[in-house]
Amino acid sequence: MEPILKQSRALCPFLKKTSPSTLRALSTSSSPAVGGSTMSNLQVVARRCPVMSKALAVQSVRSAAVARPAGHVSAFGQIRHYVNPSKPVNFIASTKKHAKAADVEEVHIKAGVFDTSKGICPHGAAAMSASKIAEGMTAPVPHRITKPTNVYKKEVCKSGNTAVFDYEAFYENELTKKKQDKSYRYFNNINRLAEKFPQAHLENPEELVTAWCSNDYLGMGRNKRVLDAMHRTLDKYGAGAGGTRNISGHNQHAVKLEATLAKLHAKEAALVFTSCYVANDATLATLGSKLPDCVILSDSLNHASMIQGIRHSGAKKMVFKHNDLKDLEEKLASLPKHVPKIIAFESVYSMCGSIAPIEEICDLADKYGAITFLDEVHAVGMYGPHGAGVAEHLDFDAYARGEQPKGSVMDRIDIITGTLGKAYGCVGGYIAGSAKFVDAIRSLAPGFIFTTSLPPAVMAGAEAAIEYQMDYDGDRKLQQKHTREVKEELSRRDIPVIPNPSHIVPVLVGDAEVARQASDMLLKKHGIYVQAINYPTVPKGQERLRITPTPGHTAPFQQHLFEALEDVWTTLEIKRTSDWEALGGLCGVGEKDAEPVQNLWTAGQLGQEVPAASVEAPVVEAKSGRPAALNEKLNDEFKIGNAIAA
Amino acid sequence: MEPILKQSRALCPFLKKTSPSTLRALSTSSSPAVGGSTMSNLQVVARRCPVMSKALAVQSVRSAAVARPAGHVSAFGQIRHYVNPSKPVNFIASTKKHAKAADVEEVHIKAGVFDTSKGICPHGAAAMSASKIAEGMTAPVPHRITKPTNVYKKEVCKSGNTAVFDYEAFYENELTKKKQDKSYRYFNNINRLAEKFPQAHLENPEELVTAWCSNDYLGMGRNKRVLDAMHRTLDKYGAGAGGTRNISGHNQHAVKLEATLAKLHAKEAALVFTSCYVANDATLATLGSKLPDCVILSDSLNHASMIQGIRHSGAKKMVFKHNDLKDLEEKLASLPKHVPKIIAFESVYSMCGSIAPIEEICDLADKYGAITFLDEVHAVGMYGPHGAGVAEHLDFDAYARGEQPKGSVMDRIDIITGTLGKAYGCVGGYIAGSAKFVDAIRSLAPGFIFTTSLPPAVMAGAEAAIEYQMDYDGDRKLQQKHTREVKEELSRRDIPVIPNPSHIVPVLVGDAEVARQASDMLLKKHGIYVQAINYPTVPKGQERLRITPTPGHTAPFQQHLFEALEDVWTTLEIKRTSDWEALGGLCGVGEKDAEPVQNLWTAGQLGQEVPAASVEAPVVEAKSGRPAALNEKLNDEFKIGNAIAA
Repeated sequence: MEPILKQSRALCPFLKKTSPSTLRALSTSSSPAVGGSTMSNLQVVARRCPVMSKALAVQSVRSAAVARPAGHVSAFGQIRHYVNPSKPVNFIASTKKHAKAADVEEVHIKAGVFDTSKGICPHGAAAMSASKIAEGMTAPVPHRITKPTNVYKKEVCKSGNTAVFDYEAFYENELTKKKQDKSYRYFNNINRLAEKFPQAHLENPEELVTAWCSNDYLGMGRNKRVLDAMHRTLDKYGAGAGGTRNISGHNQHAVKLEATLAKLHAKEAALVFTSCYVANDATLATLGSKLPDCVILSDSLNHASMIQGIRHSGAKKMVFKHNDLKDLEEKLASLPKHVPKIIAFESVYSMCGSIAPIEEICDLADKYGAITFLDEVHAVGMYGPHGAGVAEHLDFDAYARGEQPKGSVMDRIDIITGTLGKAYGCVGGYIAGSAKFVDAIRSLAPGFIFTTSLPPAVMAGAEAAIEYQMDYDGDRKLQQKHTREVKEELSRRDIPVIPNPSHIVPVLVGDAEVARQASDMLLKKHGIYVQAINYPTVPKGQERLRITPTPGHTAPFQQHLFEALEDVWTTLEIKRTSDWEALGGLCGVGEKDAEPVQNLWTAGQLGQEVPAASVEAPVVEAKSGRPAALNEKLNDEFKIGNAIAA
Repeated sequence: MEPILKQSRALCPFLKKTSPSTLRALSTSSSPAVGGSTMSNLQVVARRCPVMSKALAVQSVRSAAVARPAGHVSAFGQIRHYVNPSKPVNFIASTKKHAKAADVEEVHIKAGVFDTSKGICPHGAAAMSASKIAEGMTAPVPHRITKPTNVYKKEVCKSGNTAVFDYEAFYENELTKKKQDKSYRYFNNINRLAEKFPQAHLENPEELVTAWCSNDYLGMGRNKRVLDAMHRTLDKYGAGAGGTRNISGHNQHAVKLEATLAKLHAKEAALVFTSCYVANDATLATLGSKLPDCVILSDSLNHASMIQGIRHSGAKKMVFKHNDLKDLEEKLASLPKHVPKIIAFESVYSMCGSIAPIEEICDLADKYGAITFLDEVHAVGMYGPHGAGVAEHLDFDAYARGEQPKGSVMDRIDIITGTLGKAYGCVGGYIAGSAKFVDAIRSLAPGFIFTTSLPPAVMAGAEAAIEYQMDYDGDRKLQQKHTREVKEELSRRDIPVIPNPSHIVPVLVGDAEVARQASDMLLKKHGIYVQAINYPTVPKGQERLRITPTPGHTAPFQQHLFEALEDVWTTLEIKRTSDWEALGGLCGVGEKDAEPVQNLWTAGQLGQEVPAASVEAPVVEAKSGRPAALNEKLNDEFKIGNAIAA
């Protein structure tokens, strides 16, 4: 079987880089029960492989279908809804696809579930069974093989292809997999109320809850200026844009919004998309496919929109360890200097709250001739004297003085992307950069060109929100203060917050089912909505509740949250910080020698008199140093949502 | 050179299928001046190839950069903005990428512009020059080679890679190409006025024009019910959804909208996306990548969103000729029956107004075990007794009676996609189909999962628009009547309308520059906005003005349009129908033996007394058969925008 192993190794990056002993260990160890049965760890890994997961799906559909009737006759006399119970998986063909996959880092292989039948018809002959592969590479490998029936195969041999693919069974199988691995999502019906922010009602309008996980971080979705702008624009210009930007969908609202965004980031130009998902996807896909031999270096925690954009570009992708400058530099140094390179990363990573070393990444970009692509989605509105994001915040004083210094971090970033749907409270996304770059994307990106523009009222509302936050920093300061109060109190209560320097409060649970139960209990028993964040959004074992305080989450709301979390942690016996410490720590929680985290907003920037406490530091009196009068003023201004009104 | 030719042919589908004599003919013939110089037709073809267009771009950047300073020192002491003037194009590597390209049909190759230097350094050695390829395959091939300078190459050989890629020059070059081939777009600033529909103002609010090309086909963007629903929702629930559907962005508006869409299309479920671009892209990419060995059969005129979705899926794609059942069946028959197949097509093709043979495509799908994916983007709101689109229209009487017959065309379609941004006047897109299919896409498609939900007010507005159009068919009838009046009058005036059975009025110009001039003259001289539609939206030589009448385009607006077009056609000496006829016809215009077109809306369905005249048929008195009282009633109802108010 040596030739088969060789051939497979040449084609599959995972087989190539994984030692026989590791493969053996993976295939002989097993994971907790899934739907009653167990899976080898190799099978678990294989489900993440874009090629092998398909093969597995076929296998599952096939075995599920054995018990079904062979088909039924549709209303039109055509036979449909057949399943092909024994279509063999063509292992070599699958593996060839493998070699094409852009995400080499994510490619794994599955062995041990393939058809062992031996070429009793031409279809069978095409199948390269996993048992053969396994024989070639390791011994012994326990084969978890679902024995195929021969019914369909005989039929094929006698009369050709008479059965068709069963699409519905396929969908069902995909859903079953999601349910089995606990990644199936049940949506909560949450209706956030503008006048009762941060409260919302459930399906029943009488059932009020407090939303503690919205990305309307500053409550701009109920800001009076924003709503007034939207009402006015709706009345005058109607509900929709009526076309793509090229065909009747370009208007003064787009022009003004893009000018404001360019000004915000001190760039030559900006371009608005229907979402930042589309902005990231379209921009990376376009650049990566057009720049000759482009290589994209991507932080391992990058958002799905960037991962998809890179995949869609077809460019070479190199994933560097999260915020790891050494790893990034090694990868940059391995590439010829003249090759175009894009370093794609985020400022604030939304699920853990970590912040990128932006300036140092700019240094590396300069050194190796790369351009920087910075996603500020979770930072715009939230950081910097004008809310332009972390890049602006890093030169706080200069920007606060109204300068736009050349050579500042924000100036050095080539491409900034952001959203209008989180801190700015509306919907939509954008890119900002040089005039030529923006014009090139405007001219080349199908995801921009061939889609209806955002409604005038949405663009007007977003523009009002940006202007408001450029002029007024009280909301983001109050948000930061509430974040610190929550982090400090949870720390005092031994409830495990994943330490970070940003406005995100990720509370570690560490189990998918328990995280869901905690979320349900908060909602049903305490009237608090915090969505559980499970795999694939975070790795398995790192499940969490992601809490996002806003300026509206004042002391009474906080007290309610603390008591509810206390009850949930006690009732469900969820690990506390001290428990994690005893286990050696996880995600920075209970890790003994962890560096103390410095908040990005300093006490001085917040106008506080005492230094900001890090999450891990001994906690002082929660509200010491916060001048009561200032807080009340900020609270009042937030309530009015119109603090800088003429 | 025989081995090189062989190797290239093995890798490049275009070289493989194109005869040496054709290649010779392409490379020795040339196209009209582009920026002063001429291009061989082989070069023109090569610009459409995803691989070779990159190589061409490098070449252009390189030659453009020769005159530049070698680089400048940035504020951070790093040398940036270098151009690498002689990075050789690695032809073999490029050709290898070629072989991977999903769109085999679109792959062409370019020869004749590559570096002829002969391996004077290791980089040079890697270059497989086009002259060699050309020598191997045809002789003589005139080489249009930009002679590279050796400055950078020497530098590389002496000191390694010291220069970096010039990104700005690259963007500039891409823009220059767009300007040279007349596909660079200049957006018109059009602000459509709700109270003066179909009028809009330009940048200056005093300058009023009539918009004749918006996709707000029914004026629902200014419908009172829609605006009222949006105002109410804005006030109560704020500007934005505040999160993804999974994290605080799921609400009663999404639930209600999706239920309404499912009801509209008589499907089990529906799912809303930020746009139908995203709906098509995400759905096809997800299905095509998950269904094992899936093949997607795609109409040659499909929208960019479907083309991208298919490309992103990585599935095998087969393009069938536009609306050609024979070609589709041949392709279906060539595939094994058990392989999953998706037939992806549109009901109304927006740039020519043609309508797909939906029922016959369903028959083929049944016969060959495929599922149907029907984009009704330009049809929802416009066809059918409830505005569900062409599929509903094909069983008009049954649906008009309130039945939802099993076995109807709409019932047989597996997947329907539509937009909320055209006839429904808002923004957003959706899919509708079986519950399991919709749940699978909901659970698997990153473009759905990882993006902020549409704002509650947008969903409420769209829902109001759909409900309104389900209950009231007057707007779409009036739109159809105005469409016919326009088509008939233009026909009478010998102004060339591309014949079609739908609501689109494509007026043939046949030249990119003239189409732009015509559009500019209409706007500046006559105050009429009709965007010119040029390549790549339509093929070169088929440039057109795409006119979309609405219920608001009443007789005075029409008269204004007719006179303006008459002036433009005369002044710019644009070909008339009779001119096209003398030339043998184009796009159905002036084609002698063309079948007469039957409008999809019959006279009976419109409540007219005389049969609807086809575009090509002799024209009768324009408004005969249209009961004046009915028209006035419809006009009044449209003006009020609230015809079915309680």
